[in-house]
Amino acid sequence: MAPLSFTCDYCEGAHPKILQRMLETNMIQTPGYGEDPFCASAREKIRQAAACPDADVFFLVGGTQTNATVIDSMLRGYEGVIAAVSGHIAVHESGAIEFGGHKVITLPAVEGKLQAAEIEKYLKIFHADEAKDHMVLPGMVYISFPTEYGTIYSRSELEAIRAVCKEYDIPLFIDGARLGYGLQSPACDLSLPDIASLCDVFYIGGTKVGAFCGEAVVFPRGNAPSHFFTTVKQHGALLAKGRLLGLQFDELFTDGLYFEISRNAIEKAMQLKQLFISKGIPLYIDSPTNQQFPIMTQEDLAPLKDKVLYEVWETLPDGRLVTRFATSWATSEEQIERLASLL
Amino acid sequence: MAPLSFTCDYCEGAHPKILQRMLETNMIQTPGYGEDPFCASAREKIRQAAACPDADVFFLVGGTQTNATVIDSMLRGYEGVIAAVSGHIAVHESGAIEFGGHKVITLPAVEGKLQAAEIEKYLKIFHADEAKDHMVLPGMVYISFPTEYGTIYSRSELEAIRAVCKEYDIPLFIDGARLGYGLQSPACDLSLPDIASLCDVFYIGGTKVGAFCGEAVVFPRGNAPSHFFTTVKQHGALLAKGRLLGLQFDELFTDGLYFEISRNAIEKAMQLKQLFISKGIPLYIDSPTNQQFPIMTQEDLAPLKDKVLYEVWETLPDGRLVTRFATSWATSEEQIERLASLL
Amino acid sequence: MAPLSFTCDYCEGAHPKILQRMLETNMIQTPGYGEDPFCASAREKIRQAAACPDADVFFLVGGTQTNATVIDSMLRGYEGVIAAVSGHIAVHESGAIEFGGHKVITLPAVEGKLQAAEIEKYLKIFHADEAKDHMVLPGMVYISFPTEYGTIYSRSELEAIRAVCKEYDIPLFIDGARLGYGLQSPACDLSLPDIASLCDVFYIGGTKVGAFCGEAVVFPRGNAPSHFFTTVKQHGALLAKGRLLGLQFDELFTDGLYFEISRNAIEKAMQLKQLFISKGIPLYIDSPTNQQFPIMTQEDLAPLKDKVLYEVWETLPDGRLVTRFATSWATSEEQIERLASLL
Amino acid sequence: MAPLSFTCDYCEGAHPKILQRMLETNMIQTPGYGEDPFCASAREKIRQAAACPDADVFFLVGGTQTNATVIDSMLRGYEGVIAAVSGHIAVHESGAIEFGGHKVITLPAVEGKLQAAEIEKYLKIFHADEAKDHMVLPGMVYISFPTEYGTIYSRSELEAIRAVCKEYDIPLFIDGARLGYGLQSPACDLSLPDIASLCDVFYIGGTKVGAFCGEAVVFPRGNAPSHFFTTVKQHGALLAKGRLLGLQFDELFTDGLYFEISRNAIEKAMQLKQLFISKGIPLYIDSPTNQQFPIMTQEDLAPLKDKVLYEVWETLPDGRLVTRFATSWATSEEQIERLASLL
Repeated sequence: MAPLSFTCDYCEGAHPKILQRMLETNMIQTPGYGEDPFCASAREKIRQAAACPDADVFFLVGGTQTNATVIDSMLRGYEGVIAAVSGHIAVHESGAIEFGGHKVITLPAVEGKLQAAEIEKYLKIFHADEAKDHMVLPGMVYISFPTEYGTIYSRSELEAIRAVCKEYDIPLFIDGARLGYGLQSPACDLSLPDIASLCDVFYIGGTKVGAFCGEAVVFPRGNAPSHFFTTVKQHGALLAKGRLLGLQFDELFTDGLYFEISRNAIEKAMQLKQLFISKGIPLYIDSPTNQQFPIMTQEDLAPLKDKVLYEVWETLPDGRLVTRFATSWATSEEQIERLASLL
Repeated sequence: MAPLSFTCDYCEGAHPKILQRMLETNMIQTPGYGEDPFCASAREKIRQAAACPDADVFFLVGGTQTNATVIDSMLRGYEGVIAAVSGHIAVHESGAIEFGGHKVITLPAVEGKLQAAEIEKYLKIFHADEAKDHMVLPGMVYISFPTEYGTIYSRSELEAIRAVCKEYDIPLFIDGARLGYGLQSPACDLSLPDIASLCDVFYIGGTKVGAFCGEAVVFPRGNAPSHFFTTVKQHGALLAKGRLLGLQFDELFTDGLYFEISRNAIEKAMQLKQLFISKGIPLYIDSPTNQQFPIMTQEDLAPLKDKVLYEVWETLPDGRLVTRFATSWATSEEQIERLASLL
Repeated sequence: MAPLSFTCDYCEGAHPKILQRMLETNMIQTPGYGEDPFCASAREKIRQAAACPDADVFFLVGGTQTNATVIDSMLRGYEGVIAAVSGHIAVHESGAIEFGGHKVITLPAVEGKLQAAEIEKYLKIFHADEAKDHMVLPGMVYISFPTEYGTIYSRSELEAIRAVCKEYDIPLFIDGARLGYGLQSPACDLSLPDIASLCDVFYIGGTKVGAFCGEAVVFPRGNAPSHFFTTVKQHGALLAKGRLLGLQFDELFTDGLYFEISRNAIEKAMQLKQLFISKGIPLYIDSPTNQQFPIMTQEDLAPLKDKVLYEVWETLPDGRLVTRFATSWATSEEQIERLASLL
Repeated sequence: MAPLSFTCDYCEGAHPKILQRMLETNMIQTPGYGEDPFCASAREKIRQAAACPDADVFFLVGGTQTNATVIDSMLRGYEGVIAAVSGHIAVHESGAIEFGGHKVITLPAVEGKLQAAEIEKYLKIFHADEAKDHMVLPGMVYISFPTEYGTIYSRSELEAIRAVCKEYDIPLFIDGARLGYGLQSPACDLSLPDIASLCDVFYIGGTKVGAFCGEAVVFPRGNAPSHFFTTVKQHGALLAKGRLLGLQFDELFTDGLYFEISRNAIEKAMQLKQLFISKGIPLYIDSPTNQQFPIMTQEDLAPLKDKVLYEVWETLPDGRLVTRFATSWATSEEQIERLASLL
């Protein structure tokens, strides 16, 4: 029997409805590069779901690519982007932002979250610095929602960050690679329209939420940078058969599928959390979303050997391991039970 | 009735066998980033098909991205890449190569093909130039096979280019976005193993030859640049669900499917060519592959209006249009007949 | 006796008045980075000489650096710059423009000069191209004045180029590395104020016209891009002791020294031209400025061996050499006579 | 009377001997781009002074430019450079390193100095990280000597860093913008040959130590990267009249002038330090070199108003200012006395 994997939220293919749609539409001829009717329909459904009827919507393939393209498109050459020290663009994108010529300006974070006060302090000190013209101008704030630690910003936290951005006239970019898992958390007091109204650009992650691939970039107020399409192409991020992205998002935003499958991940994650707690396994962080971080001893892990896969996040000084167990749209009741029976 | 499209070779989804495979494997859990068993199997099949058992094989998503990543990984900062003036990287990639910091050094071409003699002349003059240290060092030769005009290099032409590259110790890169359509042309005297043995890196195009997306980069002698994986990630070209690429190429290289479906495109293209000739419509170029370039008058085109789609390549001084009609793995007998009945 | 050099216009140090000024001001303490009073004074004198009282003026160190910085500051990431195929940025800057991520779009030139009609044709075809969003957007026109072949644009030629730029709303940049030598040519029907009024940015070359180093970038209508200072720093083009540049330009623009010494180069170049003609040595191009291009046989050159230095531009099919003899602010009557006596 | 400036070490022009040399050699004709005899002589003197007879020596114009060029020339695209969080490249170079595509990986520092143990810890964790292929590979260590806080590494500290670099096979780069001031500090137990033997590349700062401009890059074991000259040109860092740099360094390395004038700065700095201590003014850091950081109250500063210039480094929570007073090769006994009489 193959081991059971909780290593990430992209272990399986795509939601069956997406596959069904691919089958049904396969031989229809369409134009390339996102000019097909599936993309058009998906754009419209996303505008409706996010309550931003004037939004510009673009479909890109993956997360790193989307971050690099969006950031490069919105910054001038002399500008950098503020991110949490633990932010994806600062750590796990192989320097894709710097490849585009921009510095990632890292600030301390609390449980993966940038703090409005920290951003404001940085910007205030920066703009008071006599040497600021010799420094990288902070030209954007990047946050991930949920964060790399599974945490989410509350409405008031997001509003506070937004206010700082407005004060300093710099755009706010929300990396929503796991957006559904954030919005469907019971701890979340924000909706998709709230996200759209509280930032300048965000993306709705497909890769980690039921699609084979794809991220939907949304400029909520029709505020896409000039020639964004060309920038996407230049970054190698333009898919020839754009329909592959369009039909997936069209399906995900039909009858609330995106939210429904996100909810499944959250329910299963909460079951995981209860499971760990019930076994006396402490959690590294109190994550309200689909990533859980139990602190495991070698004894805890022994029975999982060859049977369950997970990620090791960090080794603590006492030798215990911070591990990550991720659920997804595809996680089943049966998988949780199988894990429970082993622990 | 929807118009019939000959605009490109990526109008449909994917070959039905690929879809079938996606269905069958959908819920199998695999690691991400190309570490899955489908990618492993596909790599092995490609090594066999190309008779290069030591090859490094990587799966990327699209053509522009692949060109930019491969070229950037093999050049030093002060080097540029030689290409035909009509080469894809020189014209239709929105400056993706320059975005990576490298100049595309364009040389004249004949029917889209770089000439060994032109490359040699350029390199000879360059290296004799007293000011060469103030110029971009030519560090690679890029050719597309087939070219943007549908033409293909003969064995002797390719060997001649290869010899010049060896003489000047620079690698040869073959963009095989439409590789199958070249190899299956009756005019082609080269096999896939020949391609592998006559260059330093090439890619097998999937996007235009039956896949939803995907290009298989092959370093035939295990000669991938150090840390190529990280370079792929940095370029935003690493697919999280690498399985999507692996299973497509695994299927394409099972029982010769890649070649079989390429052959279909060529057969249909030759029928198209005969059709145009029989109607007295001249061809702009005598293409032996899946792209045909009939020169059409307004009278020729009138009956196609709203019924058949094609691309306009160029307007000739006399007002006639150079058009492009592309066939693909998906083109059917019925479609050719439909066009014939209209012309 | 050391050989006499006509290899370039930067063989000597600086004009003696500049050295004198350096001596007189050496121990005065000033702020760095161009904030010193010499720079302030030089800026004001340049504004007056160019009749553009609102101009932004910056001092950079060298030509390649200036071209790369100015172009990068004015283009967006997806834009490229149009240049003559023989333009300095296209040939002899080691890919500095591409290093900044921008394509140099080369157009045919006549005697080193871009043609307004060629630019217009290119822009017209580009903007009519259905695939233009997959191409590099032409975002600037670059010309050198004088050109790399010593030729100069007439007023009507420059006005025509300017008109095309206006029509397509893209800026015109004039590389004036040898600006003085152009303006002081008897063939020139343009003044410095004309240059300033007919472009969006230009620079006044110091390195080749009497200074140790330094190029004065002028945005004639106060139209410097936002944060240009920071872009200069980012490009490594900001001189700590900016005074070195300021005092040189201040001296060059005192009592018309820049024009006076440019005139000397032209007079000597015209003497050279007459000398070659009188010896029956043909000229490759009829250059009205300080670079002369005699076509020399081995017999012509034999008497110069070890005694006179020049550059070899090109070898003609018949074995004759296109050579370049450059005069400068420093060329003396005696040097011309010495050459004459040898030829 | 003009105010007395301690704002930086580049307030004056150049050492009088340099000016004298410029006068004497001004009309000698030389080739450009560093091929002149002054550069050749300076290279040889530097090789002797640093006891590295096989060294490759290049002359660049300024510090930021030199850092960006050297780092870019030695890193591959996927690599970044480790620096102190307070390092010049991390803070005050406007993102010049990122402009070249490389991440600056910042580590904590003690009084501006990177700690060997911190570097080792970072590299150990990095190479043990399962996700390291998704991260920027640390490919170089950058330190400044003296640091931005005026501190210097001891021999044992430098050896320890060198050992870590060797263990992980990455080069060590020493930014010596103020190298003379470090080497001439009484606290320094390292010589120029020690510096050369303990790193892979370093530069000898001229701009801040008596020259108008210029930094001498030394690859001590003839280990300059291939085509470094072209990389310098591409970065806009190649001076046409390279003689300007050559003759300055030739003079600085004649009869130990570089060290002699550095010593003057240190003597004056120590007098400054004593002066502040004697006035009861605390020092922010115990700097053994030419930058002193007195913590001043408004009362301390009042008598200096309009009479003495200095830099404000930081405002402390209690309102006092951390200021910087820099001495240089040009600081005179009289200037110290003038300050003393005011305080």
